[in-house]
Amino acid sequence: MNGRCVITVGDLGEFGIVARIAGRLPQGRTVLLGPGDDAAMVGAPDGRVVVTTDLLIENRHFRLDWSSAYDIGRKAAAQNLSDVVAMGADPTGIVVGLGLPAATAAGWLDDLADGFRDECDLVGASVVGGDITRCDLVVIGVTALGDLGGRPPVTRAGARPGDVVAVAGRLGHAAAGLALLQADRAGGAGPDDPNPELTALVDAHRRPRPPYPCGAQAAELGATAMLDVSDGLLQDLGHVADASGVGIVLDPAAFAVPAGLETAARLLGADPLEWVLTGGEDHALAATFPGGVRLPPVWTEIGRVTEGKGVEVEGRTSEHGGWDHFRA
Amino acid sequence: MNGRCVITVGDLGEFGIVARIAGRLPQGRTVLLGPGDDAAMVGAPDGRVVVTTDLLIENRHFRLDWSSAYDIGRKAAAQNLSDVVAMGADPTGIVVGLGLPAATAAGWLDDLADGFRDECDLVGASVVGGDITRCDLVVIGVTALGDLGGRPPVTRAGARPGDVVAVAGRLGHAAAGLALLQADRAGGAGPDDPNPELTALVDAHRRPRPPYPCGAQAAELGATAMLDVSDGLLQDLGHVADASGVGIVLDPAAFAVPAGLETAARLLGADPLEWVLTGGEDHALAATFPGGVRLPPVWTEIGRVTEGKGVEVEGRTSEHGGWDHFRA
Repeated sequence: MNGRCVITVGDLGEFGIVARIAGRLPQGRTVLLGPGDDAAMVGAPDGRVVVTTDLLIENRHFRLDWSSAYDIGRKAAAQNLSDVVAMGADPTGIVVGLGLPAATAAGWLDDLADGFRDECDLVGASVVGGDITRCDLVVIGVTALGDLGGRPPVTRAGARPGDVVAVAGRLGHAAAGLALLQADRAGGAGPDDPNPELTALVDAHRRPRPPYPCGAQAAELGATAMLDVSDGLLQDLGHVADASGVGIVLDPAAFAVPAGLETAARLLGADPLEWVLTGGEDHALAATFPGGVRLPPVWTEIGRVTEGKGVEVEGRTSEHGGWDHFRA
Repeated sequence: MNGRCVITVGDLGEFGIVARIAGRLPQGRTVLLGPGDDAAMVGAPDGRVVVTTDLLIENRHFRLDWSSAYDIGRKAAAQNLSDVVAMGADPTGIVVGLGLPAATAAGWLDDLADGFRDECDLVGASVVGGDITRCDLVVIGVTALGDLGGRPPVTRAGARPGDVVAVAGRLGHAAAGLALLQADRAGGAGPDDPNPELTALVDAHRRPRPPYPCGAQAAELGATAMLDVSDGLLQDLGHVADASGVGIVLDPAAFAVPAGLETAARLLGADPLEWVLTGGEDHALAATFPGGVRLPPVWTEIGRVTEGKGVEVEGRTSEHGGWDHFRA
């Protein structure tokens, strides 16, 4: 115990931590063997397993003063589950590698685990295993698995000229929320004048809401290509254009810019459409569909696939803005 | 480019790095979709997938002045592949999350990727995907997947009184090699007097050699419990004893202590059997088998399972030594 009478992960030790966290993580029906052995075991009824991984580093992907442990857990899970969903698969389980300073409060770790659990619960997945070690920074490695349920995977490479481009989920919200935090304007005019429109944007940065059900839905509707928007719409659609050998032309009028984004943009002197087109981390899904398809209202048509190359926004010169984790 | 005319990962940028690494990673027959999409896809013909993850942190799990990038890649892959094998499964693929300082030389990263590739190649697995981001420390998150080929998983919980305890692979070599490095005696009497026995121990620390084929073999021989020795034999067998609700009694005379360990122990004033019993990171396999089983010579019988609890070394008081990543 330390002098502050807060139990830390250093007090618990590696095996104490593992036992404590495992107790917070119920195992769903897809899990055949949960935490506690050399490896976990998850059902893969399709005979193929989808797998994706992300590494999140303190002060680069999250800040401990801007996000709670619970939010960080939700977000770290969400960005991986979203990648699974963007293949048209159903997430089944995640494993988490954690690096934590020894002085981390055990309650902080509980909240982080609860965040992982609750985000996984949204899609019927479970935290099936992990690894924990000491590190001066908080480091979170998440790997998510998914099952395709007999569907073909929807890659980035199948878009064809004549397809329509559509998105499901939010765009630009997380970027606006981050900009508000960076400008110290998360509360609007000040802490005594909270603005719910702005608070919602900051919440979007802290805790993305990927449109999970839309992934398998898109696959079933015959989506020819799909990805989740993690680095910015223009940059991510650029990957679809490159992988598919096509061009993409977007109609800027197709994007409804919500009032909250307009408010935040006025406050910060920013262009809200720039957030929509280049902001990442909302984990919207962007997909291409055969021209004749009838899309449910959760999907918004934003453009079309052409014979060209790259991504063009009609009437706008764009620089393919987005996030590069070594250059930014 | 920087002034030293060395291309760094910062020069390449995230997408340049990914393209460069992907070119070094051939995809094996178990891979249905390799790197470059939101997620990879790996065959899971058994209908169940085994999954395990480990997080390795610079200066905690490896030192850049003691291990080459190639060795670090080999070791990071090995410790995860070994966990898959310890379930009785065949590794199929790994994903790697990398945090790297921007000044890391691109050639260092090439060597790391080659290490991952070559270790995976030993077991027919591939590096199917990953994530790369900037970090002040080198951080490596590895997740390995495996297929059980119709076999039941071999957990830690199935040992029964009357079973024999056996190990395959090396014990204490990596611990002795680490002790030599820590004492600055890796070269023996000095750099002008290299001692191949000691060099072999240091190599064992840098690059473990898990007995990969013995995992599925043990499952087929009816092993009742199994794990890989990553934290030290006594501590790891303690997990088997706890999970199975049994005791384990080891016969210290059963351990052949190789001449190299004796030499290193004399040099450092250490007890070689202590390394054998408590040293981790060689990734030997320890398993329990029904009493009557005839074990191939690669397995050494070292004790038996009893009705008691905990692990006892006959004629020796032991403290269950091993490695706790928060306490050590």
